[in-house]
Formats: sequence, structure tokens, C-alpha cells
Amino acid sequence: MKIHTQKLVEKTRGFCDIIDLTAKVQERIQKEKIQRGLATLFVTGSTAALTTMEYEPGLVEDVKELVERFIPSNKKYHHDDRWGDDNGFSHLRASVFGPSLHIPIDNGRLALGTWQQIVLLDFDNRARTREVMLQIMGDTE
Amino acid sequence: MKIHTQKLVEKTRGFCDIIDLTAKVQERIQKEKIQRGLATLFVTGSTAALTTMEYEPGLVEDVKELVERFIPSNKKYHHDDRWGDDNGFSHLRASVFGPSLHIPIDNGRLALGTWQQIVLLDFDNRARTREVMLQIMGDTE
Amino acid sequence: MKIHTQKLVEKTRGFCDIIDLTAKVQERIQKEKIQRGLATLFVTGSTAALTTMEYEPGLVEDVKELVERFIPSNKKYHHDDRWGDDNGFSHLRASVFGPSLHIPIDNGRLALGTWQQIVLLDFDNRARTREVMLQIMGDTE
Repeated sequence: MKIHTQKLVEKTRGFCDIIDLTAKVQERIQKEKIQRGLATLFVTGSTAALTTMEYEPGLVEDVKELVERFIPSNKKYHHDDRWGDDNGFSHLRASVFGPSLHIPIDNGRLALGTWQQIVLLDFDNRARTREVMLQIMGDTE
Repeated sequence: MKIHTQKLVEKTRGFCDIIDLTAKVQERIQKEKIQRGLATLFVTGSTAALTTMEYEPGLVEDVKELVERFIPSNKKYHHDDRWGDDNGFSHLRASVFGPSLHIPIDNGRLALGTWQQIVLLDFDNRARTREVMLQIMGDTE
Repeated sequence: MKIHTQKLVEKTRGFCDIIDLTAKVQERIQKEKIQRGLATLFVTGSTAALTTMEYEPGLVEDVKELVERFIPSNKKYHHDDRWGDDNGFSHLRASVFGPSLHIPIDNGRLALGTWQQIVLLDFDNRARTREVMLQIMGDTE
């Protein structure tokens, strides 16, 4: 068994931009011909996170409203007193959701539900180019 | 080292039904005779999640009240405007807790604390049959 | 490929004590000479959690205030009615953040951002000695 490590690079708009990574991850698994195993994902940086959700416009809006309600972007945070970047809210949101995720691979496919997608959440207060590490491990037959 | 992939099937009642999976997972580890390694779990579907907690009736009630306070089931979500299933709250709760979890295996046992159990949280608004993928990897001696 | 399992032992002060584990984890990876692979972490116990964040005093304060705002320590929880330890809030906070985390290893180093550290959050209401399981898997070249 081997670990194949690669990077997904994503341009985001920040402000709780939510990006569906499912097709890209699935494509890499097929390229490595892994039949059974595990895909692990990790987003580098402290203002972005990974989770799964049904990727449809209504829920995308709901997630944006949820994080704004709990961790408002117009509130002052201690982080902002120390640093000029005013993105304390981005950091807090990212730590709650968390940067890591894993999904099993079964019969060459991600074991996701039909309405379950892998998403990158960029909480920063500006556009970013994000790196998501993807590690695929498993057997080719 | 090999990955053993299997499914746990759980009947749930939805509405933040919380189910202790610990005994089942431990049993599978013993069956595979894995002494040291890693158990990774993943729940298929976008309205359920996994975490660990002390599984006792008081805390089960506390978790139900917590999610109801933050992401109320009687609020209207954008997801509900688009779909007739009225479970926007279920999706949001699931995305915050997350679908994946891993627990080390040490001396043939899950490295959990005495008061720490693996739980499946079903946030959907109806009874479901859930599939939790369990992957066990490691060495048999 | 092998899994190296070890324990990090941390003395904490509880009450949302936040401890930076990054240097210790990096040191263990170098000791095992793993070039490419995966570090998985898991905290034993149901009142502590793991995540990543920029470890600086302002954000440490922000995280403390965030959890106090959402899951207050002076509220009564059902867990407290059953047990005398009055740490229902600690349990709830831990379950939301979650006990497990993984970080890829690339070129012998954790694939963290410059401002992204691995942190242990101890939510208990007293000082504790915590065990964090660290599993390192991967290739030495």
C-alpha cells in the first residue's frame, strides 16, 4: 500500500466562498486506479475549512447565514487588535469546522451519498489561492 | 498493511437520534485481529455526523438542546424553499459536526477514554437506515 | 508502509486551555524519518478536542470567548444533574470541535500553513494530564 500525495489548487473569492471539490477528487482517484482505500484531504491555512454538504444554492446560502449569525464579520475580535487584517471572524469559523476530512474509496469511487459533496469553505475576507492536500491510499484491485 | 473496509448499518429515528457505535466497532477490530493501527469512520449522507462523547442520557439530552438552540428545527431555511423535505436544519447541523472520524487502535483496542464513546448523530427529520463505512488498517502483531 | 504509534503527554490547566502541539509533532516525524505520509492525532477523553488555528494570544482569547458565548460554563446542563462534576459545558464543547485530526507530511514536514498550528483544546473544569495519540505513517524516502 502506498500514499499518493498531490495538491488541488483552488481560486476562491473568500467571504465564506464554498467550492465543490468532489469531481476533482474523484478524477484523481480514477487516475491512480485505487479500487479500495481512503482519500484524506487537508486545507493548508488557518482561515479555510473542509466538510461535506449537499451542494445546492439554498444550502450554500444557509451556511453563509449560519456562520454570519454565530461569528459575525462586523464584530471586533482580539485578533484584529493585534493584526491589521481584520479577519478574526475568518479564523474562528475555520477552527470550528476544521481543516481535515477523510472519505473511504469503495469500488473505485468515493463513498459519498448522492446528495453529499466535499466542500472547501474559504472564510477569509479576500480572494485567495488555496492549496488542498489530497492523499490517496489503498489497493488497485 | 491492508485496509479492511466494511459497512455498519444502523436504523435511526432521526431528530438528533444519537447512537453509540463503540461496541460494534471494537468487535470488528477484534475480528480482524488488528493489534496496532487506525480505525476510520465515515457516515454516508449529508444529514448525519460522527463524533465522540460520553454516552449517558443527560449529555444525550444536552446535545439535542444545543443543536436545537443554535440551528432550530422550526426556522425556515433556503434549502426548504427549494426542496419539499423541510430538513435544512438537519443539513446544517451535519456539516458543522462533520462526517468523518478516526480512532487509533492500540493493543487490539480503540484508544478511547473510559467515558468516551463513538456516536452517530442522525439529524434528519425522519427515521433512516444509515450506512457508516468502517476502515480498519494496521498490523496483526 | 508502517504505522508508528506514540503518545504525547500534556499537562493542561483546563477551562479552554489551548496548547500548541506543532513543534512536538514535527519533532516526532523527523525522528521517524518519514518523508511523505500522514500524521493522525486523537485526544483520549470526552472533554478535550483538536483543531488547527493561528496560535497567537489574540485568537486564543477569541476562541475562549466564542465557546463561552455559545456553551456557557455557568449554565446548568442535564449532565450536571446526573454527575457531580459540573462539566457538562466541557463535554459539549469537545463534541462540537471533535477529537481527531490529520495532517499530511510532505518533504519531511507537516503540510501546515505558516500561521496554522495544531492545538489541543482542554475544555474540562480542572487541570488535567492529557494523552494525545500520534500516528505517523508513510515512506522514509
